[in-house]
Amino acid sequence: MNRYYIYGINSVKEAVLSGKRQIFKIVSSKDKNDRVNEIIEIARTKKIFLDSADNKTLDRLANNGNHQGIVAEVSPLKRYDILEALKEEKGIKNKKWLAIDSITDANNVGSLIRSALCLGFTSLILGKNRTINITPAVEKISSGAIERIKIIEVVNLNQTIIELKEKGFWIYGSAKDGKSIIKENFSFPLLLVIGSEDKGLHQKTKEHCDEIIAIPQIKDFDSLNAAVSGAILMYEIYKRDLELQL
Amino acid sequence: MNRYYIYGINSVKEAVLSGKRQIFKIVSSKDKNDRVNEIIEIARTKKIFLDSADNKTLDRLANNGNHQGIVAEVSPLKRYDILEALKEEKGIKNKKWLAIDSITDANNVGSLIRSALCLGFTSLILGKNRTINITPAVEKISSGAIERIKIIEVVNLNQTIIELKEKGFWIYGSAKDGKSIIKENFSFPLLLVIGSEDKGLHQKTKEHCDEIIAIPQIKDFDSLNAAVSGAILMYEIYKRDLELQL
Repeated sequence: MNRYYIYGINSVKEAVLSGKRQIFKIVSSKDKNDRVNEIIEIARTKKIFLDSADNKTLDRLANNGNHQGIVAEVSPLKRYDILEALKEEKGIKNKKWLAIDSITDANNVGSLIRSALCLGFTSLILGKNRTINITPAVEKISSGAIERIKIIEVVNLNQTIIELKEKGFWIYGSAKDGKSIIKENFSFPLLLVIGSEDKGLHQKTKEHCDEIIAIPQIKDFDSLNAAVSGAILMYEIYKRDLELQL
Repeated sequence: MNRYYIYGINSVKEAVLSGKRQIFKIVSSKDKNDRVNEIIEIARTKKIFLDSADNKTLDRLANNGNHQGIVAEVSPLKRYDILEALKEEKGIKNKKWLAIDSITDANNVGSLIRSALCLGFTSLILGKNRTINITPAVEKISSGAIERIKIIEVVNLNQTIIELKEKGFWIYGSAKDGKSIIKENFSFPLLLVIGSEDKGLHQKTKEHCDEIIAIPQIKDFDSLNAAVSGAILMYEIYKRDLELQL
């Protein structure tokens, strides 16, 4: 797939602003609101091809996703390998990276990407066969955050963990039977590995982690949603990093 | 609406287990999986009327929601007033309550309810004209957590805040320009008030709060999703409460 449509105000706006990929054209609704007009204005200065269409056409281009009156035909985002990502980050000192192991729900993956960016995580490792691809739906739910995070797709997550350990990363895995994060002193650079809601991390992946952590919560109910739980862990890590920098 | 259909494995299971409302019947798919069978077995011991149907019928009863092969026709959950809720909680000492002001997205409201239950919040105040109703979609996304939290619908949230202050509650409002929660020492009993993603809390509501708090996050991007941000705040409060109890 060399070009495809992304949709939604934040997705298209971030794509235009980041300039990280080709935008072949932007198609917007005939009735434009202020937020759509703002994007059109920026796109005009960047000489992006502009078109307008009725809502039915936009629905089709967005595959019936919630396009909010604007879609863009784009090239895929660059995929990094670990060395490229490290190089672009210029030093690994306080780096915070996220790895997603086996989450197949687009809402959860999109939400994790958005939270990751907001909480200072800079690279995202996806287990290629075990996690959902970056679809336009994932991009939409990430609210455009996907444009600003480096995506690293790997075939063997365990192998990647070993490589990152060699580079000096501390590996934290999330699992219900892990150690409470309340008193955890995180060390940096750090990779947080999150697994699926029902099955958690793969056993082998778990064994590769330096520490298995968990969020305290009431005992006799299901549990926090995977995206929420990932966000809370990232928040604790971000906070710890802020404290260290004081 | 005196009876309606709820759907999904956790929603139906929690309704059966909690026994908090009438279940007129449970309708399940003809091909049942283990998790559905488990609910059927419990329902049988409670003498709930059982029926089965094809997926098309289930789709219709669930209003095309993701029913996972099981729906239940139920009465609405009880609505509490403040005094009833306080009475049932037997003492307000460490109580944590959540109020939702103007969130209209079913996913966010359902997610906040699930997180609230997991993080020890016991009552939920909904501004009646400003927030979405508890629909079957909200119940599904709450993963059945709605069965275990007391719902208080109020017409005037500001008036309710004043009443709770008189009862000894501390009121914390969430807003982007609030004080960072990193060093916040929360006081209990406590009400956390969360507003909508784009507009935040109403100005008048904000003025009624004892403290306005915010989650530290990177500056030049949109922001955390409302449900995620609410969950992180509840987590910090839950954690503080756990620390006080040590």
